[in-house]
Amino acid sequence: MRSSRRGEVDPFIVMDVMEAARAEEAAGRSVIHMEVGQPGTPAPRRAREALAEAMNAGPLGYTVALGLPALRARIAKLYGEWYNVDLDPNRVVVTAGSSAAFILTFTALFDRGDRVAIGDPGYPSYRNILRALDLEPVGIPAGPESRYQPRPEDLTPDLAGALVASPANPTGTMLGTTELAALIERAADLGLGFISDEIYHGIQYGSRAVTALEISDDVYVINSFSKYFSMTGWRIGWMVVPESHVRRVERLVQNMFICAPHASQVAALAALDASEELDANLTVYAENRRLLLEGLPKAGFTKIAPPDGAFYIYADVSDMTEDSRELCTRILQEAGVAVTPGLDFDPARGAQTLRFSYARSTADMAEALRRLEAWAGASPAHAGLLKSR
Amino acid sequence: MRSSRRGEVDPFIVMDVMEAARAEEAAGRSVIHMEVGQPGTPAPRRAREALAEAMNAGPLGYTVALGLPALRARIAKLYGEWYNVDLDPNRVVVTAGSSAAFILTFTALFDRGDRVAIGDPGYPSYRNILRALDLEPVGIPAGPESRYQPRPEDLTPDLAGALVASPANPTGTMLGTTELAALIERAADLGLGFISDEIYHGIQYGSRAVTALEISDDVYVINSFSKYFSMTGWRIGWMVVPESHVRRVERLVQNMFICAPHASQVAALAALDASEELDANLTVYAENRRLLLEGLPKAGFTKIAPPDGAFYIYADVSDMTEDSRELCTRILQEAGVAVTPGLDFDPARGAQTLRFSYARSTADMAEALRRLEAWAGASPAHAGLLKSR
Repeated sequence: MRSSRRGEVDPFIVMDVMEAARAEEAAGRSVIHMEVGQPGTPAPRRAREALAEAMNAGPLGYTVALGLPALRARIAKLYGEWYNVDLDPNRVVVTAGSSAAFILTFTALFDRGDRVAIGDPGYPSYRNILRALDLEPVGIPAGPESRYQPRPEDLTPDLAGALVASPANPTGTMLGTTELAALIERAADLGLGFISDEIYHGIQYGSRAVTALEISDDVYVINSFSKYFSMTGWRIGWMVVPESHVRRVERLVQNMFICAPHASQVAALAALDASEELDANLTVYAENRRLLLEGLPKAGFTKIAPPDGAFYIYADVSDMTEDSRELCTRILQEAGVAVTPGLDFDPARGAQTLRFSYARSTADMAEALRRLEAWAGASPAHAGLLKSR
Repeated sequence: MRSSRRGEVDPFIVMDVMEAARAEEAAGRSVIHMEVGQPGTPAPRRAREALAEAMNAGPLGYTVALGLPALRARIAKLYGEWYNVDLDPNRVVVTAGSSAAFILTFTALFDRGDRVAIGDPGYPSYRNILRALDLEPVGIPAGPESRYQPRPEDLTPDLAGALVASPANPTGTMLGTTELAALIERAADLGLGFISDEIYHGIQYGSRAVTALEISDDVYVINSFSKYFSMTGWRIGWMVVPESHVRRVERLVQNMFICAPHASQVAALAALDASEELDANLTVYAENRRLLLEGLPKAGFTKIAPPDGAFYIYADVSDMTEDSRELCTRILQEAGVAVTPGLDFDPARGAQTLRFSYARSTADMAEALRRLEAWAGASPAHAGLLKSR
């Protein structure tokens, strides 16, 4: 059977870690999971109840392409609640997770060969979806000096678009209003399509995240029910597009997706009114973050920046290894903790970084730290390294 | 905001019909819906019960990219039950409906500019998804002489791939083993990627549908829980790919979709054991089909071919109109029956065809026929036409 060049995308390395972790567990060992970027909690109770009711009330057939009108209206209202932004529900497009939103956005904005800037480190699927759609991802190396975020001067006239994420995966850093406005202005000056990935909004530990819609209407905003709303497996998210693009995106949804899963739309609508339960999850993340920021340095992970949001800590391990993959294997096998090598997020410099996810329970985090500290003390190479400091 | 050329896809005309029907209903008129290609029945009771239970048993997080192992195994078993084909579960990829399967298939097989043959008339999204992915759809005009199906001689060396559907939308015609084998052989000789859309399998009115997997392992087969399993809005389907393509498709799923909706996967697994309930739906479709084949000619729709499967009747209305869109508007407004103009399925000849969907209740079908016959008798132009025969 023939096959395409553009179908040759990179695998997720984290999937290999998950498989290795599963094998360890199958062999009877205990593993603490810090590799996966998803909450350990289910969809809010209220969401599950709403679906249980709807399932028995009538057939959950196709919805209209842009999503249930009530859900679009309620999402628009969220922009008032969270950001004091008055948003026209007509601009909200309900999607099958942010994954579908990326496919739709890239297809609506870019033609083959177009160059699209993404930050390195960043979510690996940006790069791979762009490639699968015959677009050219342009990695912008970003380091601690810009808190791992692209800067306006990184946007150049050869680009067709730019995508930023705040809070970002894997670093958890955020763009403030000034920084985000400068990026949007620069993109507009150059005629670039501007995409703001806001899927970690709601999970933040100080100042609140800023939406691109506070700054401009001429942007694509992508969000999801996966993270704050604790609904990863439901594959439900949304995008907000410029008014002039609504019909264009609607036609693409009709053809490429028909609609987002109806059951997930029903659950999502109810989840929007479950802030009490969801804010309890936030308290857990905040405590996990506090524990890790205190405990990881004791295990030798000293080069970490406190994340502003999301549930990740990105660690520079250049003093421990030049092969983050091998280090992750050792941590899994020797300490019983699964973490993700930075190579998933930064092909160039990720050989010397790791990502810790702290989306699970606080008890898990405490146990992980206990194991990592014991491992750091026992591991000869690592102990030597710690000693030499 | 910039926009792409490839994002300029055609709308579904049926969506305009649905909107017009909704407007009629909002104005207090009764409308019988024969425009939409979806069952009026919900997901099987067993499927909804399984989900209700799973929702309370634990978080429905991401599944592995290729789908729940139990679901992949059960789908493989279906090929034994339906076709006596022994299928390796490892070749089954669970997808977010056939929509996701088309995106994955086209991306895995074809590079930009590649030409892919599709039958005219056919499902309009084939053409539009291909275009959105920068591929070139090549419509193969097929008429009653080949029961609206492409023939081997239609496949030419300039093509990169060919897609067939059996039972087909909008005609309901099927390819027999001989016809399908000849197409697959011709495609293999020419080195084309061969895609078999089998989403209406299970809904058939005489001989059973033949899967391409009975003939070759070197094909992509696409199927769905939407039609026979009555789960349109759940956005859940599957594909079967050659063994050598599993990893390629897995990487694409990881990046482009992460996974199919977990809740829908749980429901689908249970639906596979709900044949008693589902076969009751089939009895309804068969009775609807019988009624329409008998009644439509009395309302002037004489040029119809009995469908082998699916729940559509495609009518040649060249003796009534040269503008199927206008005729649909008249039938909606004058008769209170919503039907789809053929233009959605055949840009060239669809101005003189209509599609009737008979997926709803038998009572609805009987009422639709009553209205259409009355309309045919009362409508001056139409009455004249009938008289002149």
